[in-house]
Amino acid sequence: MFEKYFSKRIKNTPSSFIREILKVTQKPEIISFAGGLPNPISFPQEELKVSMNNISQKYGSKIYQYSTTLGLDILREYIVERYKKIWNMDITIENVIITTGSQQALDLIGKTFINEGDKVLVEKPSYLGLLQSFCMYSAEFIQTKLNDDGLDIEELKENIKKHKPKLAYLIPNFQNPTGLTYTKENRQKVFETIKDEDILLIQDDPYGELRFTDDERLPYIGLNQTEKNIYLGSFSKIVTPGMRLGYVIANKEIIKMLETAKQASDLHSNIFGQYLIADYLQNNDLDKHIEKIKKLYKSQAKSMTDAMEEYFPKNIKFTYPKGGMFTWVTLPEGKSSVKLFEKAIAKNVAFVPGDPFYVNEHDVNTLRLNYTNSDESAIKEGIKRLSESIKEI
Amino acid sequence: MFEKYFSKRIKNTPSSFIREILKVTQKPEIISFAGGLPNPISFPQEELKVSMNNISQKYGSKIYQYSTTLGLDILREYIVERYKKIWNMDITIENVIITTGSQQALDLIGKTFINEGDKVLVEKPSYLGLLQSFCMYSAEFIQTKLNDDGLDIEELKENIKKHKPKLAYLIPNFQNPTGLTYTKENRQKVFETIKDEDILLIQDDPYGELRFTDDERLPYIGLNQTEKNIYLGSFSKIVTPGMRLGYVIANKEIIKMLETAKQASDLHSNIFGQYLIADYLQNNDLDKHIEKIKKLYKSQAKSMTDAMEEYFPKNIKFTYPKGGMFTWVTLPEGKSSVKLFEKAIAKNVAFVPGDPFYVNEHDVNTLRLNYTNSDESAIKEGIKRLSESIKEI
Repeated sequence: MFEKYFSKRIKNTPSSFIREILKVTQKPEIISFAGGLPNPISFPQEELKVSMNNISQKYGSKIYQYSTTLGLDILREYIVERYKKIWNMDITIENVIITTGSQQALDLIGKTFINEGDKVLVEKPSYLGLLQSFCMYSAEFIQTKLNDDGLDIEELKENIKKHKPKLAYLIPNFQNPTGLTYTKENRQKVFETIKDEDILLIQDDPYGELRFTDDERLPYIGLNQTEKNIYLGSFSKIVTPGMRLGYVIANKEIIKMLETAKQASDLHSNIFGQYLIADYLQNNDLDKHIEKIKKLYKSQAKSMTDAMEEYFPKNIKFTYPKGGMFTWVTLPEGKSSVKLFEKAIAKNVAFVPGDPFYVNEHDVNTLRLNYTNSDESAIKEGIKRLSESIKEI
Repeated sequence: MFEKYFSKRIKNTPSSFIREILKVTQKPEIISFAGGLPNPISFPQEELKVSMNNISQKYGSKIYQYSTTLGLDILREYIVERYKKIWNMDITIENVIITTGSQQALDLIGKTFINEGDKVLVEKPSYLGLLQSFCMYSAEFIQTKLNDDGLDIEELKENIKKHKPKLAYLIPNFQNPTGLTYTKENRQKVFETIKDEDILLIQDDPYGELRFTDDERLPYIGLNQTEKNIYLGSFSKIVTPGMRLGYVIANKEIIKMLETAKQASDLHSNIFGQYLIADYLQNNDLDKHIEKIKKLYKSQAKSMTDAMEEYFPKNIKFTYPKGGMFTWVTLPEGKSSVKLFEKAIAKNVAFVPGDPFYVNEHDVNTLRLNYTNSDESAIKEGIKRLSESIKEI
């Protein structure tokens, strides 16, 4: 009955397939590889309880009052210090805005930069939350193939030449959905390709800290070499997602505009959560905590790839993640992961079919598996059932 | 340097005058009537600390994990029960979505309904956060005069006939910025005027619970008589604003679309805050708490109107609020409240000039004063200084 009132943008938004999946997967009998949930045993619950008492005593009513749009200074300062230390970035808190999770960072970037029909270069496949978010601003997506070593440079060059994108959105570390990481060489080539173009490069990095292997930590594309980079970070995967706290690091002029966009969007992010996380970070060793999470996820990832090696037919390809939360499975040409989903759900196993990670492609032969939110026996059993489902399609 | 990248919408957003004001007013020597901050002594800090322990024990890691976009069921249930009890509304939790403050509700409504150039009927003056928010979706505003008894019905009729607005946005209780409340008769006339039109009516009600006087609580416009009403509520003014928790009550079909918009905007609101407020509400008597706030604000409002009666020149008009957080001052014709602001700030008193509450009007002769965040002696002193400033313009 309200159809005539709805905006074009909301009617064009990709279907709620994922949301429907997640509803199904909440049934207790389901082994779910569908979500992107951190393992709850990784939340520093005791430390956060201590921080609750600290901030109540230290800041009184301020933890409950309205606050500034840019976010809490002490939290922004922590971020500045961390990025200075790790990446030698030349930034101050004026380069940082706190967002209501990274998802809001995407929304604010959409608001701030995208006019109807503006071209945005994304990976193929890309993060579905980005596709959904920028769809709200009627962006036109240009997908560029992701290879095992990173972005396909030839396709990137062609796409830039042909489409002149205004923004590029990349996830160079342990990408969602594929789990792939760009090599150092590929990063360099991507930077060489775009550096003289009128392109703002957004690098979303929720998983970068979660590298299992002893390989070196790879620098961002064009790190410290351009003002046209926008960096997205998040506390969701390394402390707690429920607080919805992410951030953007960029040139001050960009941060100022994002501030205007944020004021119109939610005034500011939950200030209690900002004080809480800031106090936690001030009083605990984040790197030590991250080590624990990495150990946990490394072992869960291994359980999954081991089980896939054991049970999957030999014509099924999958990625071996070096970090992050996902592995990406490729079925033989012509097979549909949506059909597989139907078979799998009948056996009480869930995952996310590849479709929503592509622009205008359907019945693709790829799918995303999450390993961080199931224990090792559930992973083994789930993969076993999934391999049986594969034989049925 | 980034000018060429910014979107039309962000470049068209009203100036950051208010934000600049609020930055000035953070200096400790300033008596500020500028913000819209609740009095921090009204926050139930001890009870919230108890609830923190409760939820940690009761829900464990769930208070830190990702959650559903619509919001926490027990919080939505509380809202349903309250609106059933007070207003006899026939609703279920499917009619409710939790938002990151009411400001996000405005953003989601903009996303969900507004195509470029769609007409939105608003009060004159209207809430500046709404103007800013809908500006992001390139709405065209139709302002309709607000009188002492509510909306100007003749102008309303003319505007509907001439402009055919898709949405109307009204604040019938203790309006921001004027502090005015629509009479029962005016509400009825507004409903009669719009009920057969293709207009969705948004009623934003952050202050409705804060009625100081013994007058009866007035029903929403068209309450229980139409599916085309959208109700906005908030915990900011009755529990704590820092948690950023508001909600929308509407037809299920509308809530479903708002859910899609919210997923693209921030996935979900801070879940810790939702558990915390839900536990607080379950274990405390909200109405008793609201009584305390009302008593406090009534006395603060009286201090301000008393001081204005004592100090202001007789040609200055102001409203006598029956609730809420603001009074609205009208200077003599031709005087500019922006000029007054400059004089007042030199005497360390701040307020919000009327300009940002109007569409395309400048140097207006009205201004907003907030009384909830200053103690009674500061109110008296501030009004005294303001009256001296008035003599200088």
